[in-house]
Amino acid sequence: MKKTPLLFLFALLTLPLMAQKKRFTIDDLIPGGSTYYAHSYPATKYLTWWGDACMELGIERCKNIDGQVISPALATLTLENINGILAANGRKTIDHLYSISFPEPHMPYVLIDRGREKTLVDWDNRKVIWKATLTPDVSNEDWDKHSRSLAYTAEHNLYVLTADGKTHQVSSDGSADLAYGTSVHRDEFGIEKGTFWSPDGTLLAFYKMDQSMVSKYPQEPPFFSPQGGTAHSDSSTSPKEEDGRGLPYPMAGETSHKVYVGIFNPQTDKTVYLNTGDPTDRYFTNIAWSPDGTRLYLIELNRDQNHGSLDEYDTATGEKLRTLFTEDNPKYFEPTHPIQFLPWDDSKFIYQTRRDGYNHLYIYNVASGKQVKQLTSGQFEVIDVLGFNTEAKTVLYTSNEQHPLQQNVFSVDMKGKRTLLGNGTGWHNASLSESGQYFIDNYSSPLIARHIDIVPTTKGDIVNVLSAADPWSDYQVPEIKTGTIKAADGVTDLYYRLILPTDFDPNKKYPAVVYVYGGPHAHNIDASAHWGARGWDIWMAQQGYVMFCLDNRGSEHRGLNFEQATFRHLGVEEMKDQVKGVEYLKSLPYVDADRLGVHGWSFGGFMTTSLMTTYPDVFKVGVAGGPVIDWRFYEVMYGERYMDTPQTNPEGYEETSVLGKAKNLKGRLLVIYGGNDPVCVPQHTLSFMRACIDANTYPDLFTYPGDGHNMMGTDRVHLHNVITRYFEDHLK
Amino acid sequence: MKKTPLLFLFALLTLPLMAQKKRFTIDDLIPGGSTYYAHSYPATKYLTWWGDACMELGIERCKNIDGQVISPALATLTLENINGILAANGRKTIDHLYSISFPEPHMPYVLIDRGREKTLVDWDNRKVIWKATLTPDVSNEDWDKHSRSLAYTAEHNLYVLTADGKTHQVSSDGSADLAYGTSVHRDEFGIEKGTFWSPDGTLLAFYKMDQSMVSKYPQEPPFFSPQGGTAHSDSSTSPKEEDGRGLPYPMAGETSHKVYVGIFNPQTDKTVYLNTGDPTDRYFTNIAWSPDGTRLYLIELNRDQNHGSLDEYDTATGEKLRTLFTEDNPKYFEPTHPIQFLPWDDSKFIYQTRRDGYNHLYIYNVASGKQVKQLTSGQFEVIDVLGFNTEAKTVLYTSNEQHPLQQNVFSVDMKGKRTLLGNGTGWHNASLSESGQYFIDNYSSPLIARHIDIVPTTKGDIVNVLSAADPWSDYQVPEIKTGTIKAADGVTDLYYRLILPTDFDPNKKYPAVVYVYGGPHAHNIDASAHWGARGWDIWMAQQGYVMFCLDNRGSEHRGLNFEQATFRHLGVEEMKDQVKGVEYLKSLPYVDADRLGVHGWSFGGFMTTSLMTTYPDVFKVGVAGGPVIDWRFYEVMYGERYMDTPQTNPEGYEETSVLGKAKNLKGRLLVIYGGNDPVCVPQHTLSFMRACIDANTYPDLFTYPGDGHNMMGTDRVHLHNVITRYFEDHLK
Repeated sequence: MKKTPLLFLFALLTLPLMAQKKRFTIDDLIPGGSTYYAHSYPATKYLTWWGDACMELGIERCKNIDGQVISPALATLTLENINGILAANGRKTIDHLYSISFPEPHMPYVLIDRGREKTLVDWDNRKVIWKATLTPDVSNEDWDKHSRSLAYTAEHNLYVLTADGKTHQVSSDGSADLAYGTSVHRDEFGIEKGTFWSPDGTLLAFYKMDQSMVSKYPQEPPFFSPQGGTAHSDSSTSPKEEDGRGLPYPMAGETSHKVYVGIFNPQTDKTVYLNTGDPTDRYFTNIAWSPDGTRLYLIELNRDQNHGSLDEYDTATGEKLRTLFTEDNPKYFEPTHPIQFLPWDDSKFIYQTRRDGYNHLYIYNVASGKQVKQLTSGQFEVIDVLGFNTEAKTVLYTSNEQHPLQQNVFSVDMKGKRTLLGNGTGWHNASLSESGQYFIDNYSSPLIARHIDIVPTTKGDIVNVLSAADPWSDYQVPEIKTGTIKAADGVTDLYYRLILPTDFDPNKKYPAVVYVYGGPHAHNIDASAHWGARGWDIWMAQQGYVMFCLDNRGSEHRGLNFEQATFRHLGVEEMKDQVKGVEYLKSLPYVDADRLGVHGWSFGGFMTTSLMTTYPDVFKVGVAGGPVIDWRFYEVMYGERYMDTPQTNPEGYEETSVLGKAKNLKGRLLVIYGGNDPVCVPQHTLSFMRACIDANTYPDLFTYPGDGHNMMGTDRVHLHNVITRYFEDHLK
Repeated sequence: MKKTPLLFLFALLTLPLMAQKKRFTIDDLIPGGSTYYAHSYPATKYLTWWGDACMELGIERCKNIDGQVISPALATLTLENINGILAANGRKTIDHLYSISFPEPHMPYVLIDRGREKTLVDWDNRKVIWKATLTPDVSNEDWDKHSRSLAYTAEHNLYVLTADGKTHQVSSDGSADLAYGTSVHRDEFGIEKGTFWSPDGTLLAFYKMDQSMVSKYPQEPPFFSPQGGTAHSDSSTSPKEEDGRGLPYPMAGETSHKVYVGIFNPQTDKTVYLNTGDPTDRYFTNIAWSPDGTRLYLIELNRDQNHGSLDEYDTATGEKLRTLFTEDNPKYFEPTHPIQFLPWDDSKFIYQTRRDGYNHLYIYNVASGKQVKQLTSGQFEVIDVLGFNTEAKTVLYTSNEQHPLQQNVFSVDMKGKRTLLGNGTGWHNASLSESGQYFIDNYSSPLIARHIDIVPTTKGDIVNVLSAADPWSDYQVPEIKTGTIKAADGVTDLYYRLILPTDFDPNKKYPAVVYVYGGPHAHNIDASAHWGARGWDIWMAQQGYVMFCLDNRGSEHRGLNFEQATFRHLGVEEMKDQVKGVEYLKSLPYVDADRLGVHGWSFGGFMTTSLMTTYPDVFKVGVAGGPVIDWRFYEVMYGERYMDTPQTNPEGYEETSVLGKAKNLKGRLLVIYGGNDPVCVPQHTLSFMRACIDANTYPDLFTYPGDGHNMMGTDRVHLHNVITRYFEDHLK
């Protein structure tokens, strides 16, 4: 790993305590709190691209930020003008310009998306170019700007509204068991949606999913709420059950759903399904179109997730043409990025894989299916491809090459020469312009709340758009440190974050709470603002706790071996690492080793319940939210990747089940779940309660009726009061 | 009220603390505890009647207790002999003689009931007289000893097995929505079963209940338990759901079920249904046969429960012959005792009513339907009719005439002369012999754990069978006192029970916990052993708490006005009385007024949540189990009796709902519910949680997955550890 000795990285974030500085309320610190946006969220600007021109969206006007000459039409780009056009055409008016977008680089067109009512307006010529008016039951809208066709779903069926105003019904037998045009495979393998327009928008690839053979998980028991019961729910993860039979939820080792890929042609009203054969126990992922629309590529994965193939299908016939190549991994292979054709060379595409231990970019030849070149390499992870600079023939991407805790923007040319773009510190999020010559660089770093620049990808000057003030500058912010300790393997560096109590006195002894997630696809410590500290960490520091967090082996951005150390016995190595973190904590003179707590949610809830029952003498108090308790109750896709099946890995499931360890519980453990959690279904928590009752041990419980996997809005503030109170009750 | 100044009643139960006396474990005190039967349950004898001979059942032998000459066959009444007969006839043998019964007074017959296998054995002549072998899905068995016909249900249908071995299918369209032969009206109005044999056993009256129009309450979410999930459940109150659609649960003001009464004649295989007309919103209760089997009597009640009629039907045609009389009450009329014909005079029957303010016995003439005589009267309650002494023409019954806290046995002759039977103290349970000349008198009183006598109902000597030692005699038992305070109305005497901490020191200040039920049909304080103190009271006293309990207005055995004070706003007057109790508690110099707790279950859970939110400054800590939170979620029958409907009494429902008071919660409140509670469905607790979350208040929660309205077995011990711990956490 290329170590960048950035001095600031291990520096202390010390803000002198001044008498006049304010103390936080919990509403200041927790998303959903009444003062959270005012007191914790740094100022921002709403930016979008109009071709290569960066537009700052406002209420009544938009302005061009980077001085790119675009169009004399800028003067007429006003709320008043646009509302006039909308009203004249019988469309609903809008209250501000924050949500408009510019689909065509050189045309004075804005898309007004009001959900059910979508309108493409030529504001300069005062015309409606395109419009759609949908019924309330519509979702999964997918608009193609080239053909101006709109795909959408309604009551499980798929429809296409073409630019001529004609509605095409793609399917008619959709039901709660048979979904068209939605995301499949429970959003694993990078899948986020179920429709995929061909490059010119004339063909629509879509998923069809048959869940009739999948066991149903019932909806939560009824309760009365003036707000209607689900008003507080995290709607993105809340079940939508229609027939009272429960939600299809395939648990590890059980019968899973079947997925099909169709291609609909609005000109012929015909659908061709890919001729994949029996789809049982097969994952069809990472759909990509060839630039000419004649071929569809997907990565097929077996149910065991250790063998994949990049397959090419004929989009006219649905027949499989060939497998370009396969990839195997003795533990698991997890493709999450569709192939991307080079804009300047249709004969080549970029393929991402971690086959050398880190996620990297590879150039492949389409015709031969052979690798042409490994474009990036090194002990760092390519995190995401942002796009291309077609003129310079470079690929723009983010990676943590600068430091494992950072995310920075790079370009790489076809020879493999990488160039750092932007300032090379902190955590950068980027949005590329039409040509790929610029990106909006929105970043933070431990001492920077938010900074926005327009950064050229080849040459030119950086334009600063915003340097937001630290919203916490008037508050007593506790000291936040990071550092590394060795993992339980004795070799691997693990990053921790340590937060001292707000009124820290090195001669006192403080209780300490470990916040843990610990699962794959996530990290807790990074070089973003305040080292990624959570608002609750700050709140607890203000209450007098030392707060500690450690990204154990198994977490993201540290390479394949780091992640796969947990294979077939999730939680075991992770806990060993967390115990190393506890040893470090105990070595600190101001930490009271007899007053250690642990808190985590989801995988972190699994870690918390596991730690409390596997190392019952380490932690006095734990709070676990939405926990996995037994991987047998978790979904096929995620669960079997790491654990295989209960049939093929019974000892691993047994070893990691918290049910068998319920008898070991000694400390105080509060378990919290959302009554309608469709991710870690209540079966986990309820089974743990039953196991503890049977074993004569004594957890505590809380539930949020109507909530899903996470509590949102005011419920999230309530939740953190509940969590805090539990530590105050039992750890202080 | 006739006051009996029994000296002991207000005496102190003081057991000197001696160093060598033991301290209880929780298992000693809680039913389900491993040592409960050994350390808390007084010795007993298993007695039954063989005609007028009292038989003590044993493992290998039975003996005649009272020296009644019965039969020389007694010598052959042995386990060995009976098992020999059973085995010779291919029947399963038995392990003991505790469960046998003697259906015929003068015959050496015993009924061996092994659930599915029932056998009537003539042990002296070594013959099987009658037998039935049933399938596993059978329940509701009802055997008539005269005809030796057995009624039973299987998969919602009703069957009759006649003595000739023939099975008669009474119904065939039974389903989860349509039940035959089961109890109806949710066991209210004294209904406990759904089949009623005519006096000679030749006709079977039965209930049929159509619940297809009743809203379903879903089963609890799934959980995993090695014991199978419902192993710990209170099976008598656990839902039995078959089709995943939920249990029919008619909530107040909603559409209720429809009940029909049929009469099946096994000789003709015909069923006649009573011609009642449309059964919507009508209760058919208190079924009774005329002695000759030609008439069926029932008390019909309107849905509002303020108007009833005693109706006579022809059992051959099902036609209604007449209404003998009606009874109205401006609040509610609640018949719970079927009429009983005088054995020596078929022209008269006994009718029980509280129409004069207390439950009393009235003689009615069948032909005229007119009252002949009020047989008992006074400010006391007739609790139950035990039967008749036909020779002496007396009615045997229990009442609390001696004292409101007592239950004693009386006889009354046809002139209304009442005679106390037995010792006139304590709490007596009685079982009458065949002729009514004797009863088994099983009683306890504050200083007597259990005493069993055979008591003659006319003349003769009492035969003592057992004087059980106090099982707590080796333990440090806290001081238990009772007394009265005035209710909030300033007039009514209310009984309380006060238990001092085990190691009481009058100079110390102790925390105090109020245990409350408070609802109708129940009381907590009586003159049984230890004044009815609960094991958990003793446990808490040992932990150093003052334990207090008060039977407020609304509770049982104190007359109609006392009960009906709560009409249309359940909980309001009850709470006022409990606050009077608290004032008394606070007046005690050794009670710490800042450390008051409250605990109750079911109606007591309603009282606890209501008290914590209505009087938020009174109690610091509460534990509510299986609570009613809003009477809208409670069943039609019980709920509308006291509250009318949400449509006709919206202000009463609003006033008593704990949902609107959730915002007032200040103290610590733990709410506990059985995951499968079919009585106070989880909707109560879950709605309360949601209301508190919305109101930004902070209850705590616990649940017992798989359990019903009450926790039984080891779960009950666990429960009381949870309850105790909560007070230890927050009240000490």
